[in-house]
Amino acid sequence: MSTTAPTPSPAPAPSPVTLALSSAPGQPEPTPALAQLYRGFEQELLVPLWTEIGDLMPPHPRSKASPHCWRWERLLALAAQAGELVPVGRGGERRAIALANPSLGGRPYATPTLWAAIQYLMPGENAPEHRHSQHAFRFVLEGEGVWTVVGGDAVRMSRGDFLPQAGWNWHAHHNAATQPMAWLDGLDIPFAVHTESQFFEFGRHQLSAAEQATPTRSRAERLWGHPGLRPVSQPEPQPASPLLAYRWADTDRALADQLALEAEGHPGTLSPGHAAVRFTNPTNGRDVLPTLRTEMHRLRAGAATRRWREVGSSVYQVFEGGGRVTVGDTAWTVARGDLVVVPSWVPFHAQADDTTGMDLFRFGDAPIYEALHLQRTAVDA
Amino acid sequence: MSTTAPTPSPAPAPSPVTLALSSAPGQPEPTPALAQLYRGFEQELLVPLWTEIGDLMPPHPRSKASPHCWRWERLLALAAQAGELVPVGRGGERRAIALANPSLGGRPYATPTLWAAIQYLMPGENAPEHRHSQHAFRFVLEGEGVWTVVGGDAVRMSRGDFLPQAGWNWHAHHNAATQPMAWLDGLDIPFAVHTESQFFEFGRHQLSAAEQATPTRSRAERLWGHPGLRPVSQPEPQPASPLLAYRWADTDRALADQLALEAEGHPGTLSPGHAAVRFTNPTNGRDVLPTLRTEMHRLRAGAATRRWREVGSSVYQVFEGGGRVTVGDTAWTVARGDLVVVPSWVPFHAQADDTTGMDLFRFGDAPIYEALHLQRTAVDA
Amino acid sequence: MSTTAPTPSPAPAPSPVTLALSSAPGQPEPTPALAQLYRGFEQELLVPLWTEIGDLMPPHPRSKASPHCWRWERLLALAAQAGELVPVGRGGERRAIALANPSLGGRPYATPTLWAAIQYLMPGENAPEHRHSQHAFRFVLEGEGVWTVVGGDAVRMSRGDFLPQAGWNWHAHHNAATQPMAWLDGLDIPFAVHTESQFFEFGRHQLSAAEQATPTRSRAERLWGHPGLRPVSQPEPQPASPLLAYRWADTDRALADQLALEAEGHPGTLSPGHAAVRFTNPTNGRDVLPTLRTEMHRLRAGAATRRWREVGSSVYQVFEGGGRVTVGDTAWTVARGDLVVVPSWVPFHAQADDTTGMDLFRFGDAPIYEALHLQRTAVDA
Amino acid sequence: MSTTAPTPSPAPAPSPVTLALSSAPGQPEPTPALAQLYRGFEQELLVPLWTEIGDLMPPHPRSKASPHCWRWERLLALAAQAGELVPVGRGGERRAIALANPSLGGRPYATPTLWAAIQYLMPGENAPEHRHSQHAFRFVLEGEGVWTVVGGDAVRMSRGDFLPQAGWNWHAHHNAATQPMAWLDGLDIPFAVHTESQFFEFGRHQLSAAEQATPTRSRAERLWGHPGLRPVSQPEPQPASPLLAYRWADTDRALADQLALEAEGHPGTLSPGHAAVRFTNPTNGRDVLPTLRTEMHRLRAGAATRRWREVGSSVYQVFEGGGRVTVGDTAWTVARGDLVVVPSWVPFHAQADDTTGMDLFRFGDAPIYEALHLQRTAVDA
Repeated sequence: MSTTAPTPSPAPAPSPVTLALSSAPGQPEPTPALAQLYRGFEQELLVPLWTEIGDLMPPHPRSKASPHCWRWERLLALAAQAGELVPVGRGGERRAIALANPSLGGRPYATPTLWAAIQYLMPGENAPEHRHSQHAFRFVLEGEGVWTVVGGDAVRMSRGDFLPQAGWNWHAHHNAATQPMAWLDGLDIPFAVHTESQFFEFGRHQLSAAEQATPTRSRAERLWGHPGLRPVSQPEPQPASPLLAYRWADTDRALADQLALEAEGHPGTLSPGHAAVRFTNPTNGRDVLPTLRTEMHRLRAGAATRRWREVGSSVYQVFEGGGRVTVGDTAWTVARGDLVVVPSWVPFHAQADDTTGMDLFRFGDAPIYEALHLQRTAVDA
Repeated sequence: MSTTAPTPSPAPAPSPVTLALSSAPGQPEPTPALAQLYRGFEQELLVPLWTEIGDLMPPHPRSKASPHCWRWERLLALAAQAGELVPVGRGGERRAIALANPSLGGRPYATPTLWAAIQYLMPGENAPEHRHSQHAFRFVLEGEGVWTVVGGDAVRMSRGDFLPQAGWNWHAHHNAATQPMAWLDGLDIPFAVHTESQFFEFGRHQLSAAEQATPTRSRAERLWGHPGLRPVSQPEPQPASPLLAYRWADTDRALADQLALEAEGHPGTLSPGHAAVRFTNPTNGRDVLPTLRTEMHRLRAGAATRRWREVGSSVYQVFEGGGRVTVGDTAWTVARGDLVVVPSWVPFHAQADDTTGMDLFRFGDAPIYEALHLQRTAVDA
Repeated sequence: MSTTAPTPSPAPAPSPVTLALSSAPGQPEPTPALAQLYRGFEQELLVPLWTEIGDLMPPHPRSKASPHCWRWERLLALAAQAGELVPVGRGGERRAIALANPSLGGRPYATPTLWAAIQYLMPGENAPEHRHSQHAFRFVLEGEGVWTVVGGDAVRMSRGDFLPQAGWNWHAHHNAATQPMAWLDGLDIPFAVHTESQFFEFGRHQLSAAEQATPTRSRAERLWGHPGLRPVSQPEPQPASPLLAYRWADTDRALADQLALEAEGHPGTLSPGHAAVRFTNPTNGRDVLPTLRTEMHRLRAGAATRRWREVGSSVYQVFEGGGRVTVGDTAWTVARGDLVVVPSWVPFHAQADDTTGMDLFRFGDAPIYEALHLQRTAVDA
Repeated sequence: MSTTAPTPSPAPAPSPVTLALSSAPGQPEPTPALAQLYRGFEQELLVPLWTEIGDLMPPHPRSKASPHCWRWERLLALAAQAGELVPVGRGGERRAIALANPSLGGRPYATPTLWAAIQYLMPGENAPEHRHSQHAFRFVLEGEGVWTVVGGDAVRMSRGDFLPQAGWNWHAHHNAATQPMAWLDGLDIPFAVHTESQFFEFGRHQLSAAEQATPTRSRAERLWGHPGLRPVSQPEPQPASPLLAYRWADTDRALADQLALEAEGHPGTLSPGHAAVRFTNPTNGRDVLPTLRTEMHRLRAGAATRRWREVGSSVYQVFEGGGRVTVGDTAWTVARGDLVVVPSWVPFHAQADDTTGMDLFRFGDAPIYEALHLQRTAVDA
């Protein structure tokens, strides 16, 4: 440990601060004295607001991230190759391959706050137990045969299922089937990186045989999966959902019910032809995870969402059907499995195919902004 | 707007993703096939978890920021030079000079979430009205003569005063005295940059004469500045404090009371010889701003804080007296006005001078972590 | 309107206050002067604490209500007679017959806060639309064929179903079957009487044909009856549940799941052999109604509850099976439909029959005490 | 303990239920069969809704309580006599004399939920330590010299001071002066009686000499009495205020500030000429006690309140000045110390004297209704 006296100032090393004179409007007139002042700022590790304000404090969010679309067939093909080449085990932890937004410097960030990856597990493989403070979920586009074991409770994964994974719970995966299986992993990793709030621990290398079971329903579902019914033995509100699987049969029926209600002339849909449900924590009615909002949207054939923008970012995955998704000035024709990212304050619009309709899974970071009173939404049309 | 078909994949531009083979433990064996797979990842804008996990998901926060100390006398001298050379006005908005953490790439970030700047206003100057979604405050190390006008309410600034400035309130400053005045500005700008949640608007160029008044007490203080008393005309809880000034006389007395209680054998201090008060929002008892925690600490002569670490970062400014501050492995002898940053999960310790004691103003980002259930604290000793 | 001057004191009428001298320990010595003072108290409508404190401020709650058991077969027989003799219509509003606790002066109060009644509707009858601020629910012991229409939404009633009815919603009932039907009505009427917070309005005499529909599932269930799934179109928390029916199939399965988990060695039951679920508001995870807690309990054959007491009162109804219920010093052998009241702070214990087990519906006033930080529970064994 | 078989029905004792036939509109036609049915109801302790609904479920609250005014000079004279005749000590506990609403059967209830009493302590007297679950406060109309000792912390009582006393805190009083002293005690005793939620314990007969101290400021004030400043050592929200005295100097200044703001053209008053502050819990910004709302109102000379009604009841005491108070159809000219009760949903209006103005202390039960979503207010003019 070193102790330094109050003066003279330390720092003989080259300063990371670099300030350039500018003749732009609103900037002070470039003079030798100003140049000298800027050298002083650099030496003392100071940066003036007046050279930075446009970037730091824009009139509205101007995301560094770009709208982008990843094609599921390409992801799946690469993941399958990784299945052959890259073992799963302690250290690497997971065969997960993350979307890297083209404007975020090659980092594995779908958006500045969100991580989205395809995870791939070969028949008989085990992904070892660990836990982390980052909140996570799995969403299953297709396939079956993998169980996620959370705190010793084996949770089946099948097409359309949504599995939240609150931070700091022990978890592992095992593939009990004869086919590989892939799914979407969503986490708040980039947010945790920026806010430097990460904790991680390795768990056991091998779960017990009992934990490697393959039950149809997890214990969590048997306790918490009944609509509006709370086990009295566990009454306290919890920050994240204790319900470890939201099954497709329920989600599908909820969406179908909304569209049927609309057809009968009753409220229920978000806008005409657009049904949507949010996965919630049954102990408090809020988002399923403290940092992540997760929803399933269904567009009737030919229907469209409203066009809106909001603070914070989202990732959409086409679950079924297809159509056209527009983010800002870019549009894509999308099909099953394709993934699209929507940066902060960039308008989003989706139009379902005229014959198939479109089901869209969505996750985003809205709970962060709502908790901090920073949320804003603007519906353009 | 361009529409692309689902295949073939777009992106002929060079990929920002770069993946290198590695023989490090836990990495898959470098082979031509793996190299080819990595090229595929790069082309599709994908990054595997197994090459990144140590960096993304460390066992505990490893801040990119460094502990650092800025000397007030140097800041003040440079700010005074800027007072001569850099006009204050629309566009640059404020003569504010920000601390740039030496490990954050020259960006004006004291920590990954916090902005800290010295603001300087010459006699007779006006800083024009604007508003922004970022939450802000002023803390006055010394001097007087400036009024901050918030929504038309002129708030006096004097040594020791703390002025919160909740996001999206119109505000301006004017120096009604014959001397320059400097103070500390704290904001959540870096957090807003990372989460892309910024809104900003210009206000009027010139306030009315009535708004340029110089009252001793603001209207906000007359409404909200009475202990435990809420104006019935404004009963709803508000996300940020409607009390626009916390006066030094109150803060000083609260700290003195805690130390006196301790001397009489009663609880009150945080640890022996260490008094502390938090600035709170009287409408809900929580932190004064949704994203920022602000506190004043007092160490009796010769006393020390406990040594602790916590998720999230802080900035300390010596208000009075001096002593020795240790952050991680670095220690500084500090005096009035000096500023020290404490990165996430780096231990902090302060020891007051044996004769003067030490008063420390502190601000940090703890409300963000608490709102999202991500907070952790460890007291080392 | 009359205006009186400050003196002399008014009140020539006989005072309702009557104070007697007493030689009991702790009472002031009876003297002529004391008698004169007491006459002064009476004249001025004053009562001293010292003569009343034992009654007003006992060491723990001593309920005015008595434990009591009502037999379903007797209630049903009388209700059936009322079905022949008493028409249902505007003014009387409902053919509801309330339990009158034997110690509450003949008032229709099951306990000092709770109303419990058997309601009876003949084939083809309509109970007219009204609304009231009191919170209500229906619980169906047996039968089917009645629909409750809440805000135009027809909700089927069948054995085992629980239908909450938040205050100030329009509602009516109609019997679409060829048999009479009876069910349990629970409300917070006595609490509303004591706190003088009642509002009531008549609605339409006749619902539309569409509203008299007999759907299997209500619109409310189609929107809100999916576990953990919230319709995004209706995201705000609501003080009472928007889910208008909790179906027996769900409740039964949740209870069976808890006992099965217990049998497999996992947590879930409240105590050995005792499963319990609480009906909750899916928008906030709390009790289904702001003033009423409602639960279904299941005792495995031969199992018993713990013996406990709590602040506030409850009413239990045997839904299936039977056993022995003990309240304070009184015990009853109970069978399907029987109702038992448990006054505040009187111990409750239930023991299921060795062959049938026992399902118990319970409602109580616990949310009142929890909201006001007045709850206490003591488990005796 | 007795066990009864399910049949035959018990109850040979005379039933407390009495039902009379009626020819009133809406009642079933009186017939011998109906009479027999009603005998069956009586025997089984049942009461039909149709005979009771008008009383139980009125269109709006119709309070059993009456508006009434008690004169301070009469109360004080009787309390002084009691000071001579009635000792203070264990068993009687307090020389407190409660207002008995003329329509509540001679019970010591100012309203159906509120207790209001004058308490009187002779020089040198001690009121022994106890604690109870009922929430309480003291409000000092005049005088000084008594300290209330709460959990060992001696709290001075002087004219205009408000002292909350959250349930289950140990407390005692001692008169350290040479004059008797009287003050107003407010509690939620009637509410606790109706809801049967009372707990009470005797404490020590004699406090220590240190606890019988007479400090100007209590420890609670030194910790919590600084506007917007929370001691960091005690950060958690608490259901009731930890601040044990709200001093008149603060209250007076807050009211004067509101009227001054109004005079300068700024918002602050509740209505023209009507300033009001609410005593709040600094840890959560809500009411000072979970069941009681307490406020101080000031009417400028000649000014009047709006005329309003609300669910729940209130007690007003004139603190200074005088005027005319109207409750429903009754009006009184009131002076210092006079007490007026306002039953639920009865309109209240106050008009200050043209020369003196009027300060009114108010307490009521509004937090109960707000916590349970039962509150309503109607401003008539």
